Parts: sequence; C-alpha cells; structure tokens
Amino acid sequence: KQYRIAVIPGDGIGKEVMPEGLRVLEAAAKKHGVSLHFDHFDFSSWDYYEKHGQMMPDDWKEKIGKHDAIYFGAVGWPAKIPDHVSLWGSLIKFRREFDQYVNLRPVRLMPGVPSPLANRKPGDIDFWVVRENTEGEYSSVGGRMFPDTDREFVTQQTVMTRTGVDRILKFAFELAQSRPKKHLTSATKSNGISITMPYWDERVEAMAKKFPGVKWDKYHIDILTANFVLHPDWFDVVVGSNLFGDILSDLGPACTGTIGIAPSGNINPEGDFPSVFEPVHGSAPDIAGQGIANPIGAIWSGAMMLEHLGEKIAGKSIVDAIERTLAERTLRTKDLGGNADTTACGKAVADMVD
Amino acid sequence: KQYRIAVIPGDGIGKEVMPEGLRVLEAAAKKHGVSLHFDHFDFSSWDYYEKHGQMMPDDWKEKIGKHDAIYFGAVGWPAKIPDHVSLWGSLIKFRREFDQYVNLRPVRLMPGVPSPLANRKPGDIDFWVVRENTEGEYSSVGGRMFPDTDREFVTQQTVMTRTGVDRILKFAFELAQSRPKKHLTSATKSNGISITMPYWDERVEAMAKKFPGVKWDKYHIDILTANFVLHPDWFDVVVGSNLFGDILSDLGPACTGTIGIAPSGNINPEGDFPSVFEPVHGSAPDIAGQGIANPIGAIWSGAMMLEHLGEKIAGKSIVDAIERTLAERTLRTKDLGGNADTTACGKAVADMVD
Ligand SMILES: CC(C)[C@H](C(=O)O)[C@@H](O)C(=O)O
Ligand SMILES: CC(C)[C@H](C(=O)O)[C@@H](O)C(=O)O
Repeated sequence: KQYRIAVIPGDGIGKEVMPEGLRVLEAAAKKHGVSLHFDHFDFSSWDYYEKHGQMMPDDWKEKIGKHDAIYFGAVGWPAKIPDHVSLWGSLIKFRREFDQYVNLRPVRLMPGVPSPLANRKPGDIDFWVVRENTEGEYSSVGGRMFPDTDREFVTQQTVMTRTGVDRILKFAFELAQSRPKKHLTSATKSNGISITMPYWDERVEAMAKKFPGVKWDKYHIDILTANFVLHPDWFDVVVGSNLFGDILSDLGPACTGTIGIAPSGNINPEGDFPSVFEPVHGSAPDIAGQGIANPIGAIWSGAMMLEHLGEKIAGKSIVDAIERTLAERTLRTKDLGGNADTTACGKAVADMVD
Repeated sequence: KQYRIAVIPGDGIGKEVMPEGLRVLEAAAKKHGVSLHFDHFDFSSWDYYEKHGQMMPDDWKEKIGKHDAIYFGAVGWPAKIPDHVSLWGSLIKFRREFDQYVNLRPVRLMPGVPSPLANRKPGDIDFWVVRENTEGEYSSVGGRMFPDTDREFVTQQTVMTRTGVDRILKFAFELAQSRPKKHLTSATKSNGISITMPYWDERVEAMAKKFPGVKWDKYHIDILTANFVLHPDWFDVVVGSNLFGDILSDLGPACTGTIGIAPSGNINPEGDFPSVFEPVHGSAPDIAGQGIANPIGAIWSGAMMLEHLGEKIAGKSIVDAIERTLAERTLRTKDLGGNADTTACGKAVADMVD
C-alpha cells in the first residue's frame, strides 16, 4: 500500500524543519520498504494569507481530506497576523473539522538532552499526555456586555459533552492498558471549577469500571504541575481537558529538557479523517531564517505518523535514530549545546536510521 | 495599637502547624514590641461540621469580620466531606464575601531546601505570583442538560469583569513598580481561550500605560509553566487569572523544592474586610496526627500577615529566622531531609527570631 501524505510546512521554522523530517521519513521508508507519496501545500501560512486574504483555499477539505495523514510544520506569526486568524483558520480548524479529538504527546527524557531537573536520567521520565482536542475550554461560546463602561463583563463557556469526554477517556484508558505499568492519571480541578470538572471526574470513574486492569488516580491541576517537577517518575499516561492537556504537554517536555524536540499527533482514531502530526514548538519568528532550528520535533512527529499508519517498525527505527543522534554532542543543534545546524542534524538522523 | 487576629486551625495538619505559627508570632511580637491579641475559632473544619451540620455558624461574619486579620490553617478532608461543602463553605466563601481579590504567594528558593531544578541556588529564584481570587474560572454559573443520555452536556462560564480584572492588574503593577527589577509577566492563553483571555490581554495593555516604569511581557500559560522550570530567574511579579494563578502558585513553590513551606495571603487591599493568611499546603489527611508536618508554611504566612498589618520589621525578622532554621539540617522536618518534628522546627524558628 502506498500512503499519501499531505505536507504543510506553514510559517517560520516550520519551513526549515520539514525538509529534514521528510529526509528522515524517506530514509526510513526506503530501509523498511514502506511506500510514501508526498503532496506539498503552501497554505496555512502567512505567505498564503498575504496573497489570498485567507489562510486556506475554500476547497481545503477536498485538497487534503482524503490523504492518509497530514505532516505539518508550524503556523503563526503574531507580528504579521493575529493568532485568532492564523491558528483558528488552520490548526484549530483541522482539529475541529477533521474531528481530531486526541492530542497525543510523549514526555520522554532522551540521552544527551540535559534535563532541567536535578538527578534525572533517561528512563526515569517516560509517559504520554493525552489531551482532549476539540471542546472544553477552547469553546467559541461567550461574549462581552456593557463594553467600555465600568459594568463591562466578558464570559466564555467551557463545554464538555458526554460524547467528547467519554471518547478521550476511552482512548486514554486503552493506551494505559496497552502499557506495562497500566497506570492512568486524570487531571482535574473539581475543587475549584465546580461544574464541568466534577462532571469530568464522574465520567473518569464510570470509564474506569470498564478497565479493571488499569490503576488510576487523579490530581488537581495545580498540584499535578508541581508533581511533574517533583515526581515525573510517577506518571505513565496522563489525560486532561483541552486546556489542562495543553499545559501539561508543554510542561512535560520542558521537564525533559526542551520543548524543541517534542512531537505531537492530532489524531482522529476512527480514521474518518486524516490526522495531523506536528512538532510541539511553534514557528519561532525570532530564530526563523537562520537555519539553526532543531528539526527533532518534526522528525519525531514523522515517526509518530508512521506508527499511526501502522508502520511501527519504521517508526521505531526513527525514534532509535533520534536517540543515537542526540547522544552525540556534535550532532545536536545549538539549543542543546551542540554545533550542528538544522540540515546537519537532520542528515545525521537520516544516516542513523536502520 | 493592638491587632486582633482571628485564629482558625481547621482540619488535619492545620491543627498541628498553627500552634507553631502562633509561637513564632508571639516571639516576634515580643522582640519588636508589637501587640497581638488572638481569638480562637473551631469552625471551618470537619469537626465543627460533624457537630453542627454546617461548616460555619450563621453569624460567622460578625464573629470574624471585624478582626484585623485571619490566621488560617487548612481545610478539607475529602474522605469525610466533599470539597464543595468544605472549601466552598469556608475558604472560598471568605475570598468572595470578604472581597479578598488578591491571592499573593512568594516563590523563593531558600537555603537548605534542595531544589528539584538542577544548578539553582538561593537568590536565583525570587518572585511573586499575584492571583485573581474572586472570579474568572471559579464561577458558579453553568449547568447540565440532557442528563444521563448520549446528548448530555455540561457548561461552566468563566466570568471576567472590568472591575475584577483591573483591580488585580493594578495591584500587580504596583507591586512590580515597588521592586528593584520592576518587571511584570502576565499569564494568558488568548490564542486558545478566545474570548475572555483576549479581554485580559487588552486590560493588561491598558493598565501598563499607567505604569510606564514597569517592563511587562506576557506568555501563554502552556509555555509559561515550561519557563517556570527552564528559566525561573526570568520572573519578578507574575499575574494570572484565578485558575492560572492557582496553577502557577503551586508550580512555583514546587520549583523551589516543596509546597510544604509556601505561604499565602488572601488579601483585601482596601482593608474593608480582614485578609486571610494560610499555608499553601492543605490538611494532608495522610500525615495528619503524626506530628511530622512542616510548620514553615504556616509560620511564613504569619510573617506575611505581620507585613500586611504594617509591621514590616517584625515580619522580616520571621522570614530571616526561617532562612536560618532551614539552613540547619537537624532543624528541618523530614520532608526536607531533616529529623525535627513539627514542634521542634517551630521552636527553632521562634528561638532564631531577633
Ligand atoms: C482548595 C482549592 C479550592 C484552592 C484553590 O484552588 O483556590 C487551593 O488550591 C488554593 O490554591 O488555595
Ligand atoms: C497555538 C495554540 C492555539 C495551540 C493550543 O493551545 O492548542 C498550541 O499551544 C498547541 O498546544 O498546539
């Protein structure tokens, strides 16, 4: 079978890291006899917006909706275009309209990446954050009343649906069940956010009954962030709402040294729509154009994409190659104390694939 | 002037740490000629609830509303009483009904407290988290529709008022202006939470115009938590909404080694109502009754209370005594690698006050 991949580099360093991601994907595909076909798209970027006055063509869904997966760089350039136009006009649109209700991110301490945490070695930190990716705190329901007066107030609703909550919890419990530790942690704040969060807790308890083999616990988000720093070895699979998952999946990678290498998948598990794989980092206007961006986030996202497509061996070969590359100081980019540029680092990973 | 302090130990280790807090307050008061009068109250606890079927007497406001400050231990015992009864029936009630719209917490790396962060020394981390404490995400507006069906959904509103946002920002900018670095960081998430958070940003920009001497910046909460771990030295005063402030003021103390020693003030800056000073830690049912709880959070909260009352020298004498105590391993409690029990640690601080 040939997999058809839509490639969208987007903005800033997205354009610099994607070629390296593709280089490594091609190397792994060749070694493991996987057939990949790439279609390249220039939309979902400031450049496209400048020309067309919108982030994507009207028929974007036809253009990329039938692909097996979407391989994405980064989007956003706040100095040129407001986030609500760029992000809500592309990335968040994909999540919603392609029903990518799972945002999946590994938190793993890699060899060669200095952790900001004292006394943690590779192997000590190795868990997944599973984030609800379509509803919750990122709703568009709300508004402003009495503008520009002293009585002004603004509201925004958090929305949790039975469908939305149950399906992310099911995904998270299944993932926990498939892992050796079989341990799930739920992020809540039911002591303060007194309506939606108790509902989340209630659904976690109901779902837990269907997974008797999974040990589970819950922490309020405040102490959970503290425990990411104090006890990152406690976690195996951590599930949270859209906002809590967003926070935990930046904090987790920070605890393992840098968000520069973290990958993510925006996944539609049923496969009705393509899933999007993208580095956790953004377009980084401050370093764009210098050729120094770390391509590992994009490369690792490519590995997640292969695993999602069912090509587990090819995917794992990339993760192994990343580990071997990071272990060599000279092959790491500057942000990790090395002296390789984006291309040199990408080439090194491609060479390591076997 | 004699200050009248209402003392409420509450639940669990609250009852164990408060006597030490009082011991140290008395020592500092004596040394510095400050006159403190303590009135003790048993409500806002599970014990009181068990006897009376409610957390507080009907006339709680008359009983404690005229005091100069409230010195609080901890409340909550989830195995016996749901959080929404215990917390919303006391702590959160105080915040709302006494209009304590500022929750103020220091984040400071103390000598002798091992930081979970690599290579950080006392002096490297020293900032304040200013949290909005009455509105925002902790609203009681929302509900559930179509219960127990597949269409079930639950909503909860975040509410930001002009009054509520502006007054916390003003407090934060003033605090920043009073400090040598004059630097304010605002926590936002306007790229995802698309209605309330852009409003918060807008009010920050408006307030910043009134404080031209303060340098300010903003980070989305996801990357801000990452930066607490990666660059805690970047911060001076950090201001956030009720939820974001809650998260940051647990994560911050965790980065400095433990939330066991962190203090907090729930402050009504106008002085129309008493402010509440309490340790950040909770009632800790798991270690309650063993006499091993760390009293430093309560003691440090007492110091904040004195400073709030205008007794800055007496307050500082306590903070200095805490630093000297923590520097001695034998005077620290078990959670910090020492072997002192709660009382021994409290006595040590009281002896160090000068
Ligand atoms: C106990 C809980 C409701 C409270 C809060 O979230 O405000 C606590 O975490 C705090 O920070 O004081
Ligand atoms: C860019 C932003 C809207 C996005 C989010 O909050 O979802 C990002 O932080 C992420 O985690 O993918």
